[in-house]
Amino acid sequence: MFERSISERTVFSGNIITVKEKIVDMGEGKTSGREIVEHPGAVGILAFDKNNHLIMVKQFRKAVECELWEIPAGKIEIGENILDCAKREFKEETGFFAEKWRFLGEIYTSPGFANEKIFLFEARDLQSGQQLPDEDEIITMTAFSEDEIRKMVLTGLLKDAKTLSALLFYYYLDN
Amino acid sequence: MFERSISERTVFSGNIITVKEKIVDMGEGKTSGREIVEHPGAVGILAFDKNNHLIMVKQFRKAVECELWEIPAGKIEIGENILDCAKREFKEETGFFAEKWRFLGEIYTSPGFANEKIFLFEARDLQSGQQLPDEDEIITMTAFSEDEIRKMVLTGLLKDAKTLSALLFYYYLDN
Repeated sequence: MFERSISERTVFSGNIITVKEKIVDMGEGKTSGREIVEHPGAVGILAFDKNNHLIMVKQFRKAVECELWEIPAGKIEIGENILDCAKREFKEETGFFAEKWRFLGEIYTSPGFANEKIFLFEARDLQSGQQLPDEDEIITMTAFSEDEIRKMVLTGLLKDAKTLSALLFYYYLDN
Repeated sequence: MFERSISERTVFSGNIITVKEKIVDMGEGKTSGREIVEHPGAVGILAFDKNNHLIMVKQFRKAVECELWEIPAGKIEIGENILDCAKREFKEETGFFAEKWRFLGEIYTSPGFANEKIFLFEARDLQSGQQLPDEDEIITMTAFSEDEIRKMVLTGLLKDAKTLSALLFYYYLDN
């Protein structure tokens, strides 16, 4: 199955997202409209400290008008290798370098309307550095035990889909 | 922490999404721009048949230009109760009624740029009905064993964040 584009037009070009309206051919003479958000893609890092506690960051997310706990993450720059991006974002958001990296998997966060793809990594053997968040980020960092993470998920304190997805990849890989 | 809106303007109003540009006050005299996609929210259903196989649907997703395996899901209509929505979408996409429902949790799929919230449910005790997909959907349905699901995740065949998140809630609730 495939939906061929009959026409498309860009309705918004921002600094981060581009929004397009497309008309698609669904076959059998049927057409339909699609509203699509284009995003550069991102990485997310499931990082464990020497106590096997998970490094989480909390920041205010304007889109949802609240603070959220998430794994460290960030957008891929044009032409950037995804592992280099993960190392850069991890250092910027947490101040840590990590010696050991493992690819966990990739996800589409909202395939119904957005092309955002997030590449997920596990990081271990952390070395302290200096936290250097972007100008437009204010980030709090904490490490949580596996039990604390489970409680955060079950009490609704952890709602971020990339974080939940990364935890599932990790669970399936190691169990 | 909170980012107060200084100004906002709507740059796109579609049938499904609305896109806004906002200027926010980050405190300490700093301001920043935010590009935000507003979405009505959705439900997703982790449904198991009598063999304990998970019901999955495959459909072409124009945003990512490929077919994806996902749990049945759909947008919430204005004023609609989320459980009613889950029952309606489940019946439309799979043809099944379910007798037993359990709330699993809620997720934000892309909190960096979108307010989409998905409410996740588990459904069991399925009764056959008639599949009635929306006019603009072409859906294939299959049931997979737990082992098949695990393989699909680890081989990269299952990339949908709401599906992975629902599986994690399910795992944490029952283990």
